[in-house]
Amino acid sequence: MAAASPVGGSTAADLVTLADIRDAQQRLTGVVVPTPLVPCPWAPGPGSLLVKPESLQVIGAFKIRGAYNMIAGLSPEERARGLVASSSGNHAQAVAYAAREFAAHATIVIPDVAAPHKVAATKALGADVVLVPQAERDVAVTRLAAEHGYVHVPPYDHAAIIAGQGTVGAEIAAARPDVDLVLVPVSGGGLLSGVATAVKAAHPGARVVGVEPELAADAAESFRSGRRVVWEPSATRRTIADGLRTTSVGVLPWEHIRAYVDDIVTVTDEQIMAAMHALAVQANIVAEPSGAAAVAAYLFARDQLPDAGPANDAGTTVAVVSGGNVSPELLSQILADPQYTSLTSG
Amino acid sequence: MAAASPVGGSTAADLVTLADIRDAQQRLTGVVVPTPLVPCPWAPGPGSLLVKPESLQVIGAFKIRGAYNMIAGLSPEERARGLVASSSGNHAQAVAYAAREFAAHATIVIPDVAAPHKVAATKALGADVVLVPQAERDVAVTRLAAEHGYVHVPPYDHAAIIAGQGTVGAEIAAARPDVDLVLVPVSGGGLLSGVATAVKAAHPGARVVGVEPELAADAAESFRSGRRVVWEPSATRRTIADGLRTTSVGVLPWEHIRAYVDDIVTVTDEQIMAAMHALAVQANIVAEPSGAAAVAAYLFARDQLPDAGPANDAGTTVAVVSGGNVSPELLSQILADPQYTSLTSG
Repeated sequence: MAAASPVGGSTAADLVTLADIRDAQQRLTGVVVPTPLVPCPWAPGPGSLLVKPESLQVIGAFKIRGAYNMIAGLSPEERARGLVASSSGNHAQAVAYAAREFAAHATIVIPDVAAPHKVAATKALGADVVLVPQAERDVAVTRLAAEHGYVHVPPYDHAAIIAGQGTVGAEIAAARPDVDLVLVPVSGGGLLSGVATAVKAAHPGARVVGVEPELAADAAESFRSGRRVVWEPSATRRTIADGLRTTSVGVLPWEHIRAYVDDIVTVTDEQIMAAMHALAVQANIVAEPSGAAAVAAYLFARDQLPDAGPANDAGTTVAVVSGGNVSPELLSQILADPQYTSLTSG
Repeated sequence: MAAASPVGGSTAADLVTLADIRDAQQRLTGVVVPTPLVPCPWAPGPGSLLVKPESLQVIGAFKIRGAYNMIAGLSPEERARGLVASSSGNHAQAVAYAAREFAAHATIVIPDVAAPHKVAATKALGADVVLVPQAERDVAVTRLAAEHGYVHVPPYDHAAIIAGQGTVGAEIAAARPDVDLVLVPVSGGGLLSGVATAVKAAHPGARVVGVEPELAADAAESFRSGRRVVWEPSATRRTIADGLRTTSVGVLPWEHIRAYVDDIVTVTDEQIMAAMHALAVQANIVAEPSGAAAVAAYLFARDQLPDAGPANDAGTTVAVVSGGNVSPELLSQILADPQYTSLTSG
């Protein structure tokens, strides 16, 4: 991609461990929904597909795991200083929700182009919202942290966030010791890093593969080239998967991806919408576009996956449905679109 | 109701026990999804709502629990004779699926007015389908059982079915010892009977309440009158909740309802559709109309519920979402309907 540029090479980094993830599991007990693995016999074989609906979490996405884990791990003094985060999406609501659980003050920096209902949802959870131009988000977070002493809760580039998201992988590994392949959407890489760490620790033979939209394939390009590349926002914002528009994986996630992840594959926006239709109609799960990416890879990008092809048995695949915060309008349109019925009439 | 008529009074019946339900749990391990309790902080208080999405089961509804439990409890010789069931809905697919798991032959009697995709779905699970006029369903089942020696797997009026559905209640009781109120859709009464048996055994102080459409309120009328009444099919078929059109509760369920159930309340079809919208948008759960009835009661019929009212704390309520097999067309319409947005914009 012309938009790609390398940023830095290998850095020595302390990777998150299984012990960190176990600690997170303790903190998250009673807070997160231990989501089930839902069998999908309707999904064409070979092998079998199970999906893990993180869409059932209280804020509609896995993000509550990492945000809550980091905030729970702060000292009371740190929490008393207040928290700041930057997000227009699920991370905003995750930080707001977790902060409220600890009676901590949260300020969320949201780009002024965000949908009003997302601003309202974050405010409804008790957070203060600061609207800034898109390009000034990072500056605003730094300024708020400096001025008020707020602790920054980043969306993915932090060990406590990765450990929290890793509890998704720990649940998969515990429930299915026979898992062969785990498919995970990748944006900043926190979820993929945590899941890969947990799954590989329990079952070194299992493969863990990230899934990204073709239109925001910075992580796939990084994986191919061996260098963490950054795409332009004008490129990544083309995809319908609004949760996967991050322009590069994080520095710490990148180290985990290099250590534990087997591949990163891509899907088209059309495949994502078809997977949303299939999940709603066949599995009764509402997925947002980002949330359906891993299922789209199973259904439509099998040729890119390990052990794929008619001569092989793909074994047991788990696809993480990372969230379900889609607008009713978009979901309604996809459900009514006749082009998606052929997959789901069997 | 002019359509009501009493049928029989009290009969001595052996009620299903907690031990029966524990046996069913053993049989169903690894077969059913142990569905989580999903918190719904978006639902207006007082108290808190958790929903149990049985829509995530492999055939999209709780019915797999009872059908599988009964078929698993048959002798190999009985299973070798073959199975017969009558249903145009979720029970058909449950019996077909469970029979296939045991390599048993299943014949499903389906009314010839059923939607072709339901017939196709049942055939896709390997069952033979016999289409008959609506009024001849029972006769056809009896004839097939007599001619071929098939074992009849009824939808609700059997101890093994009730015990299987009761595993829903056992899961609720184990997960939430603090549960105050459990809301369950009622049609033939198998699910309500099993859930009430399990919940009352574990937590005698918890209330268990059935929920029925106003347009098919035979069970509510039975509960009020103390006699099991039957409505006309021409009356019950008016409701959009196609899984709750049964014209009376079963004989054995009726005994459980009298023993364990605290009340049966009613909701309108409009309330059911509003609950479907809320579940999809706020909880990312696809519910069919029947499946949304209990949530509709929590949201819109609080005045009918125990401990309701602004001066009281309704405590912890669990509502069972019994299934999610709704047509994409209806779900799409409900999602796009502007009259349902007010509840869900908070």
